[in-house]
Amino acid sequence: MFYFILDILGTIAFAISGVMVAMDKKLDVFGVFIVAFVTAVGGGTLRDVLIGQTPLFWLKDLTYIVTIIGAVIVAVVFRSRMSYFKRSLLLFDTLGIGLYTLVGVEKGLAVGLSPIMCVALGTITACFGGVTRDILCNEIPVIFRREIYATACILGGFGFFILRQLPLEETYSYATAILIIIVIRLLAVKFKLALPNIYKST
Amino acid sequence: MFYFILDILGTIAFAISGVMVAMDKKLDVFGVFIVAFVTAVGGGTLRDVLIGQTPLFWLKDLTYIVTIIGAVIVAVVFRSRMSYFKRSLLLFDTLGIGLYTLVGVEKGLAVGLSPIMCVALGTITACFGGVTRDILCNEIPVIFRREIYATACILGGFGFFILRQLPLEETYSYATAILIIIVIRLLAVKFKLALPNIYKST
Amino acid sequence: MFYFILDILGTIAFAISGVMVAMDKKLDVFGVFIVAFVTAVGGGTLRDVLIGQTPLFWLKDLTYIVTIIGAVIVAVVFRSRMSYFKRSLLLFDTLGIGLYTLVGVEKGLAVGLSPIMCVALGTITACFGGVTRDILCNEIPVIFRREIYATACILGGFGFFILRQLPLEETYSYATAILIIIVIRLLAVKFKLALPNIYKST
Repeated sequence: MFYFILDILGTIAFAISGVMVAMDKKLDVFGVFIVAFVTAVGGGTLRDVLIGQTPLFWLKDLTYIVTIIGAVIVAVVFRSRMSYFKRSLLLFDTLGIGLYTLVGVEKGLAVGLSPIMCVALGTITACFGGVTRDILCNEIPVIFRREIYATACILGGFGFFILRQLPLEETYSYATAILIIIVIRLLAVKFKLALPNIYKST
Repeated sequence: MFYFILDILGTIAFAISGVMVAMDKKLDVFGVFIVAFVTAVGGGTLRDVLIGQTPLFWLKDLTYIVTIIGAVIVAVVFRSRMSYFKRSLLLFDTLGIGLYTLVGVEKGLAVGLSPIMCVALGTITACFGGVTRDILCNEIPVIFRREIYATACILGGFGFFILRQLPLEETYSYATAILIIIVIRLLAVKFKLALPNIYKST
Repeated sequence: MFYFILDILGTIAFAISGVMVAMDKKLDVFGVFIVAFVTAVGGGTLRDVLIGQTPLFWLKDLTYIVTIIGAVIVAVVFRSRMSYFKRSLLLFDTLGIGLYTLVGVEKGLAVGLSPIMCVALGTITACFGGVTRDILCNEIPVIFRREIYATACILGGFGFFILRQLPLEETYSYATAILIIIVIRLLAVKFKLALPNIYKST
């Protein structure tokens, strides 16, 4: 139940971030909805396609589309006031990537992947929705340019595998790993930390 | 046989629309062919990847690639006269999205999806080829910006599920749903109807 | 063993070409790595998704990610001297597309596809990584615009099926087909051959 609520909050946050980018590009109602949808479920979709888990989860479970439609309506109606919720959205989004990373890690373990590829799968789950959102909107994906975002997911993912060696309950390792991701991400936002860019002529 | 001819006409229309966009971008022969191919089969490809029906239909049935190669050759050779056929192309394209939507709905029913997701799958089948065409050509997908296109597919798809409740033969429901899509699309083109754009500051 | 070394050399060459394009776009460390990774494994990924071979090969075999991480580190560290290695890189890349094409053809035969679609699958394997690299970097894919690249793969692929009719050992047909691709590609680079562009008004 607790995970389910986090999952829904993450879906909402991702959908709203899609709405924001799509509105900047002056898309029509359908375009805004598709970009929101892809942002919210794109990461999980690529993950499940790569490991062969079809039909896709959002085809079988209506919760996702209903949640996203609701989030889009709210975001569009209150679009002029969305900046008031910036903080809450950042929090949801951060909760979202934390949870999505660990869901991806768990799926990787379930199909017998090595820890490195479990972390890769978790990072794909958390990040690829935003990548697709930016490609659909004809932008170079923002997380390739100036954010500690995927890095938080990767560190949290490896954190989980380190914690797992300790004599702890699995649930505790999951929760701590999610917390690591959240803390790194929030610190990066607060202190405007970013990965170094790489230029050709140095 | 009737469906088969519609399918071929739809493939031709989609392939030619790909050729048009690719020529605008001054691609070479190979680029033009790939964009045409992706426009024609991209929607069905995403649909089958999402529901896990592999190997893909166009890998197993040569009809598609042969039809598309033929369409590309004709479109390239007669490229300076393509504007004469604008009306016929619109008709083929409209037949194509009507048929493709219902093919997608049928596939969704076959794997046991709910009506909403069947309609989503139908809309993906009809629309995603054009979306990929625009991404490959470095444009924001045109159907996200100013067209009643996906909307026609969605309304036709739901129309099918309403008609299906009535004591009619299934074939009749299919045909009527395709007709709904065609009529909405042609009316939208004739009267230049479009979905409202959403701007941030209203 | 021989094939394995070629595969690794191809992966390295493709990864480095990804690093080059990503650095031009001033991506951060994570962005550079992802673009390199996608360039190296993107073609094989699309191939295996289309024929339904999941979980993906690079999720199961760590060789790929380790090789790519190594190639990225070397390319980034020696980025100011990369131009000295231009010739070697072209050679690796050319070996890479030759080998990748035949790997794709072989996979197509293994799932019972017709020769035409085997060649298509081989060409996808060799070329789609570069296509994804360019889409992620917000460019129209370079091989759609001015290169004899896919053409070499297609001709080599069909060459394999012609050679296969002769009373030769299969290994010999494979090697000759790879050689055909390499020779066509190198001649095209040396003599600056390109496919004709197609303009609308001729």
